[in-house]
Amino acid sequence: MPRRIFSRRFLAGGAAAAALSPMALGAQPAEAQEADAAGAARGSASRTSAKAPARAPAGGKVRRLKLYAEKMPDGRLGYALAKGKATVPGPLIEMTEGDTLHVEFENTMDVPVSLHVHGVDYDTLSDGTRLNRSAVEPGKSRTYTWRTHTPGRREDGTWGTGSAGYWHYHDHAVGTDHGTGGIHKGLYGGVVVRREGDILPDKQFTLCFNDKVINNGPGHEGPNIRAKVGDRLEIIMITHGKTFHTFHIHGHRWADNRTGVLMGPDDPSRVIDNKVTGPGDSFGFQIIAGENIGAGAWMYHCHVQTHADMGMSGLLLVTDPDGSLPGYEPHGLAGHRIG
Amino acid sequence: MPRRIFSRRFLAGGAAAAALSPMALGAQPAEAQEADAAGAARGSASRTSAKAPARAPAGGKVRRLKLYAEKMPDGRLGYALAKGKATVPGPLIEMTEGDTLHVEFENTMDVPVSLHVHGVDYDTLSDGTRLNRSAVEPGKSRTYTWRTHTPGRREDGTWGTGSAGYWHYHDHAVGTDHGTGGIHKGLYGGVVVRREGDILPDKQFTLCFNDKVINNGPGHEGPNIRAKVGDRLEIIMITHGKTFHTFHIHGHRWADNRTGVLMGPDDPSRVIDNKVTGPGDSFGFQIIAGENIGAGAWMYHCHVQTHADMGMSGLLLVTDPDGSLPGYEPHGLAGHRIG
Amino acid sequence: MPRRIFSRRFLAGGAAAAALSPMALGAQPAEAQEADAAGAARGSASRTSAKAPARAPAGGKVRRLKLYAEKMPDGRLGYALAKGKATVPGPLIEMTEGDTLHVEFENTMDVPVSLHVHGVDYDTLSDGTRLNRSAVEPGKSRTYTWRTHTPGRREDGTWGTGSAGYWHYHDHAVGTDHGTGGIHKGLYGGVVVRREGDILPDKQFTLCFNDKVINNGPGHEGPNIRAKVGDRLEIIMITHGKTFHTFHIHGHRWADNRTGVLMGPDDPSRVIDNKVTGPGDSFGFQIIAGENIGAGAWMYHCHVQTHADMGMSGLLLVTDPDGSLPGYEPHGLAGHRIG
Repeated sequence: MPRRIFSRRFLAGGAAAAALSPMALGAQPAEAQEADAAGAARGSASRTSAKAPARAPAGGKVRRLKLYAEKMPDGRLGYALAKGKATVPGPLIEMTEGDTLHVEFENTMDVPVSLHVHGVDYDTLSDGTRLNRSAVEPGKSRTYTWRTHTPGRREDGTWGTGSAGYWHYHDHAVGTDHGTGGIHKGLYGGVVVRREGDILPDKQFTLCFNDKVINNGPGHEGPNIRAKVGDRLEIIMITHGKTFHTFHIHGHRWADNRTGVLMGPDDPSRVIDNKVTGPGDSFGFQIIAGENIGAGAWMYHCHVQTHADMGMSGLLLVTDPDGSLPGYEPHGLAGHRIG
Repeated sequence: MPRRIFSRRFLAGGAAAAALSPMALGAQPAEAQEADAAGAARGSASRTSAKAPARAPAGGKVRRLKLYAEKMPDGRLGYALAKGKATVPGPLIEMTEGDTLHVEFENTMDVPVSLHVHGVDYDTLSDGTRLNRSAVEPGKSRTYTWRTHTPGRREDGTWGTGSAGYWHYHDHAVGTDHGTGGIHKGLYGGVVVRREGDILPDKQFTLCFNDKVINNGPGHEGPNIRAKVGDRLEIIMITHGKTFHTFHIHGHRWADNRTGVLMGPDDPSRVIDNKVTGPGDSFGFQIIAGENIGAGAWMYHCHVQTHADMGMSGLLLVTDPDGSLPGYEPHGLAGHRIG
Repeated sequence: MPRRIFSRRFLAGGAAAAALSPMALGAQPAEAQEADAAGAARGSASRTSAKAPARAPAGGKVRRLKLYAEKMPDGRLGYALAKGKATVPGPLIEMTEGDTLHVEFENTMDVPVSLHVHGVDYDTLSDGTRLNRSAVEPGKSRTYTWRTHTPGRREDGTWGTGSAGYWHYHDHAVGTDHGTGGIHKGLYGGVVVRREGDILPDKQFTLCFNDKVINNGPGHEGPNIRAKVGDRLEIIMITHGKTFHTFHIHGHRWADNRTGVLMGPDDPSRVIDNKVTGPGDSFGFQIIAGENIGAGAWMYHCHVQTHADMGMSGLLLVTDPDGSLPGYEPHGLAGHRIG
């Protein structure tokens, strides 16, 4: 049975990309990711095969995405692909170098809000700031245009950087001109820009350390991440607010470089399992779930001791191919509600 | 019309280097940089040409620089190239690997002060600490000697690191034995050590996040940086005090490596637009102003939300070749006085 | 006279590795390092020779180590290689990629304690957490197994990272489920995993910034590090607690990559002398003591000004080959008790 291909991936490189559905854009609500995991658990065990992983095709497409800013019933604020469907973090948006994305943004809230993005190219009209008159009044819409480019030689012979990276978007208008109120209440999401040939993951999860909480959720309760042994799991990690953290994960580690994966034997990057991160930061990496260590419930947490103790911790639940988690009891483990 | 060559650059590699004027040493007061920018705006639009940029020539020169520590009329303390001309940050000092610099340092203040440098080679007599008896009493002078070296093989076959980097100097004696009082009041400046062949910038700007202020200036008022579209702008970023920050700039990004510029397609360094930085840190990078995004007023700010909101923010004003800034109104923009 | 070979090194690659004594495992109490330094000072001056340094042999060995958790007479908690011999930091443990280490861990204290390690491979039984039932009750023992692996191609053709790095171990059970109490009182130590061919140091020193103290010692009193000019000195730097720091050393600098040493002319890593570090972090590097600058008393300190002022500072005492420290007076230097 072949490697499971997610629709976003298939569409990213194929003819169906013109369909312009949210999934075609690689945008997926973060809260759907756990349900997705259940599906993956029913899939094949082909991750242990010798089959080469899928890789990002060349970019260059022009796409459109509809995005809403909403007040959620519980008081959080969120970005949504469809009205009433806001999530925190907002939808993960994926592009490939060379792509252009037009985000048709509608403000359904009662205060001005904006969409400011890191990493990609945008002119001042898409800056998402009051300074550049690109915030959106209540009930109004605005199209933000994000462009990306491949690396290459400039005319003067110097090397120009490409857009690839683990980036993010957030509000820059609610509460203060820096969006402090909007970010605090949940207006943020991840952006992944890939380079042609980058390895595509089997699963993805966006985490945001937003002051003392993760993804604006309650402490001591996750969010938990599910994967099967051998899954190529991609973590997109964002930090917001006013507090510094260290992101640590048990049993797994990554390269502190562009992709989070060592490029080969000559890549001198540090391999780490703990990273200092501060407001406005984003990074990402891919790990093979359970590689060399097997199935289990692996903590990830902020390693600032007081933050960990107050509940900035979740679990990476790595199951066997049949979806079971040997030796695992979801109840009564101190400090962790395991879903 | 040829690329504008700054005097410091011309002199660094040419015969006139013997002239030993401050500019020949690459030392320039930071506050002169904005005036400089106005001059640049009247220059040619040749940045968009295919002409290769200037590169650092080989080092190996021995030079002298006169530097003063002064109490400024407004209570700040500053380093100066000439009496009564102190600036905060102090003069930017540039060297090339292999160069030696003798800094003839005079303390015009009424308390002991020193000059401690990061990155370059100095023996204990030039450490700039009380521990090593190299602070300077009021009214006294001392020559600090900074040496640099090229990378290369050691006798034992291992690889030795060169001195190139974005470094800085600061007081290590005022207030406490770690110079906490001197640094707090403005006794700091940037040092750039280049490697032969490093790309030279068109413009430079030194920024210091010194606790909750930038360059010891008022909040919400910059400092602003001016450049034309296509200028190769070099930022030297220093952090001091007791507080951690994240440095973010809108619309532009850089490589988190030695030069801040990717060395080519095999350089695995992360490309970022937000960097955690803490006291004693320095880093630098070059960006092509407005590349892929055009002219405009682009914010840079600390991304710690409370810091941004209290005014740790300035503007990168990228003009069209004729010096104009389309769609830009300097008045009435919340939180930014635009000069 | 040949380069002095430390016993741990000799044993790591040689037949005597089977002896399984603590030193054969590369585990050495940190507090023994300074005494070791005195011995080194009586050694040869061969560091200035052109002889190539020793390099790590291939790994693949299976070893056992006995480790105790103890309450020390002064109230600190420490890890020990022998009963009553606890140190803070605990013993430095060295491995080479491919090695397996079984740590026979005994809890001599009156509360549950554990051993959690960063960087190496372990299954949930060796996680050292209550979550995975791998903490140890008072008076009980448990064997933790740490495995390491070399880098290489996976079956699917992608590149797999090796285990090499500067890692660390710590308690994850005392006080809170994150070991906040145990770490606070001293339950931590360094782990070095080398790659075959990595350069071996002449001397090693482990430093931990544990909130506002270094190695749980008093402020303003070190710990001091002794080396001779030309020694290849390895620093293993750990951070714990709830506070962020910047580690700075005078006159020396290192590469911000896996080994702390530039791999050659194409390594784009930043060379730094000041690094932001936060709880759970570890990094390491090798410096040639006094290279290009000579003998002297060189400060290292946290560059957060308030932390430095309250005593987070020590000395790197670099002596001439005969062990003397020219111009150095151990008494009366403000803020430093020099041993």
